[in-house]
Amino acid sequence: MSTPTRTLHLNLFLSSMGHHEAAWRHPSSKVADILEFSHLQRLAQKAEQAKLDSLFLADRYATSRKAVKYGAVSGLEPLTLLSALAVATRRIGLIATVSTSFNEPFNIARRFSSLDHLSNGRAGWNIITSGTDGEAQNFNHERIFEHHARYERAHEFVDVALKLWDSWEADALLQDKSSGIYADNSKVHEINHKGKHFAVRGPLNLPRSPQGRPLLVQAGSSEDGKEFAARYAEAIFTAQQTLADAQAFYADVKSRVVQYGRSPEHVKILPGICPIIGESEAEAKEKEAELHELTHPAYSLLQLSNRIGFDLSSYPLDGPLPELPATEQIAGHQSRTQLIRDLAQREDLTIRQLLLRLAGGRGHRTIAGTARQVADELEAWFTQGAADGFNIMPQLTSGGLDDFLDQVVPELQKRGLFRTEYSGRTLRDHYGLPVPPNQFSQANAISHQFQ
Amino acid sequence: MSTPTRTLHLNLFLSSMGHHEAAWRHPSSKVADILEFSHLQRLAQKAEQAKLDSLFLADRYATSRKAVKYGAVSGLEPLTLLSALAVATRRIGLIATVSTSFNEPFNIARRFSSLDHLSNGRAGWNIITSGTDGEAQNFNHERIFEHHARYERAHEFVDVALKLWDSWEADALLQDKSSGIYADNSKVHEINHKGKHFAVRGPLNLPRSPQGRPLLVQAGSSEDGKEFAARYAEAIFTAQQTLADAQAFYADVKSRVVQYGRSPEHVKILPGICPIIGESEAEAKEKEAELHELTHPAYSLLQLSNRIGFDLSSYPLDGPLPELPATEQIAGHQSRTQLIRDLAQREDLTIRQLLLRLAGGRGHRTIAGTARQVADELEAWFTQGAADGFNIMPQLTSGGLDDFLDQVVPELQKRGLFRTEYSGRTLRDHYGLPVPPNQFSQANAISHQFQ
Repeated sequence: MSTPTRTLHLNLFLSSMGHHEAAWRHPSSKVADILEFSHLQRLAQKAEQAKLDSLFLADRYATSRKAVKYGAVSGLEPLTLLSALAVATRRIGLIATVSTSFNEPFNIARRFSSLDHLSNGRAGWNIITSGTDGEAQNFNHERIFEHHARYERAHEFVDVALKLWDSWEADALLQDKSSGIYADNSKVHEINHKGKHFAVRGPLNLPRSPQGRPLLVQAGSSEDGKEFAARYAEAIFTAQQTLADAQAFYADVKSRVVQYGRSPEHVKILPGICPIIGESEAEAKEKEAELHELTHPAYSLLQLSNRIGFDLSSYPLDGPLPELPATEQIAGHQSRTQLIRDLAQREDLTIRQLLLRLAGGRGHRTIAGTARQVADELEAWFTQGAADGFNIMPQLTSGGLDDFLDQVVPELQKRGLFRTEYSGRTLRDHYGLPVPPNQFSQANAISHQFQ
Repeated sequence: MSTPTRTLHLNLFLSSMGHHEAAWRHPSSKVADILEFSHLQRLAQKAEQAKLDSLFLADRYATSRKAVKYGAVSGLEPLTLLSALAVATRRIGLIATVSTSFNEPFNIARRFSSLDHLSNGRAGWNIITSGTDGEAQNFNHERIFEHHARYERAHEFVDVALKLWDSWEADALLQDKSSGIYADNSKVHEINHKGKHFAVRGPLNLPRSPQGRPLLVQAGSSEDGKEFAARYAEAIFTAQQTLADAQAFYADVKSRVVQYGRSPEHVKILPGICPIIGESEAEAKEKEAELHELTHPAYSLLQLSNRIGFDLSSYPLDGPLPELPATEQIAGHQSRTQLIRDLAQREDLTIRQLLLRLAGGRGHRTIAGTARQVADELEAWFTQGAADGFNIMPQLTSGGLDDFLDQVVPELQKRGLFRTEYSGRTLRDHYGLPVPPNQFSQANAISHQFQ
């Protein structure tokens, strides 16, 4: 038996018009289609034709009157849209962002189990904590909970969900018409969870789903976030601006994973990449400049202030970024705030310059170049200990997504770095991840839950 | 202009195998398909071909180890399944049950808005309060909240949702590429709700959906339930055993509706009907007996005990129903408990006999007969002030649903009582209900919210 070649994983971070702040204003964007299912379906099907591992939808539980003026409207609620896309696709994975801050674990465990049943094993959950006051104010609070407290709740939330998914053993369902016995209830378990945040009896009101549970994905890169990821995550979305930073993050997380007794190969690290592809590098840069031209500095500043939880509106655009609070004192998004501060310092950027650097991908790395140049960069990060794959965030959907799928993916396939056909059926198959054992199963009673 | 003829409305209460407790055991049921989307899709498409107004999914947030032994597993979470069915259908309405007891209004308002966008205006919400301790125990409580308190929360929950749906006026979206102005934010409103149960700032993070808001449906018939329905509901699902009871309920609710300043025609009353159709009445009764033969008394008793919130396991099956607590002292499902008590008394039933009477439709009325007999009964209730239409609950999906759609619907059409083609696009169109004015819109500032 030959050792299987290590190949990379590609996730499409789905955005209706594109990840660039001004994508909707681009002449090629059909902005009336922004919430249209037929348009979103076409994007999903195109990604599936290119054999991508998965689609992913981000989420936030608030917008503001100021922000909607320039376009900051969320899309359809992720699990709603992915349930519909499950019908329009057959193989690609479907990863929904759902926050642990303003939901109940019984409801969320059930919705993911439902999506996993519906999609025949293609559900994934990007687990986040909500980090803005605007979101807290839609859920009975004035201020967002403190960073560490949010993660404490997230830990317990995921523990409860894992118990609920395991509350039905795989062979509990009998459906024996002659005896009238529907389920062997010695294999259906109350979980009787009683913790600081939640008390949940169980069992879940749905039999075990094809994957047992959704693929668990995590996207925060703070100290709390990395610990959380090391314990639970099977894939990690992260923002990394430089190869060195990405390598350090990769090594750090993989070693933490080992400390939890897990195999480092069972956690796939996927930095975000915002590709802009041209016939030449110059053409790609022109495309980027064209999008930058369409930005509103007032909007960009609002987005940045919201992202770092610090109001920048009174600082001159052509001056430097002011001193921000120390990372551990930030209630909101710690790791992204730190990345933005590091970027501004490293490149000595004014606020105005920083806004443009963030317009394309909110801190994720932009690569503007030819398809080969983009493939070269991805290969370099993949082979040099910085990534197991990538979270692809086209700055412009119209044209830009096609450029990536039609030009970069075949180049990666030619190099033997990416699949040319799906070899499995489930999202877990695509990422090469095992089905975890059931913590309540007698057969697995002595094995560790997360091995 | 001639006066349009009053025609009836038909909703399919979707059940994978059928509403009879033992439907899954019937020889014709493919029980392996119970959660299969392709099977559920076929049922939905068949109902759409018959031009039914809508599909409806019930829901409960718990099961128990005892109950799953005999089959009490919920289906896929309703909004998940209806999002998928939105893609597989084009015209039929999609009504999901969601409880106000264990959710947050921002999340639910957004999910219904998402489904309404996705389905081009076909979303409906069956608003319930959760009435069992088993559900409370999955959401951090030992006991279910007292009946009146549940409705108090439900009122505020719906008020918040209505405000959120109105937080975007219909013409707020500009999407003006040249100026970069995405929305006219003078038409996007913070709701700044601060009440006893909820504090929600808004606006919703999605523009106004095609119907403005989902159709509001309500299914409780207690005193609290009727008041709630009179204030909010546009359609009411109800269980009525006799024409006289149904007429009294109909008159009572319509007069309450008028007291809230609403038009009685803007609230459609739809009693549940469990049809069993045969070539002759005798054949229909045989079909019913065949299903009854497959019931497990132990399971039926468990279901009944759970439904009335009173443990019957120590009472002899061949004795009478014991005295139950007074209706207003029941924490759980008051109106259904009262219906069951009245039924047992009126017909002097033993517990065993009562279990069989409830096995087919849990208290909804069974009509076993020929297609013409069923049509006669529906016509009688419709023309004699007992119903505006019906909530159709086939006891057996396999065959039984087809019998109703292929035989009873054409009979109703022949009598001019039911549409032969959809005349509108949205769920609200099908039920002949207007789009309510926006409470925040300047144009409607002086009109009443619920006219």
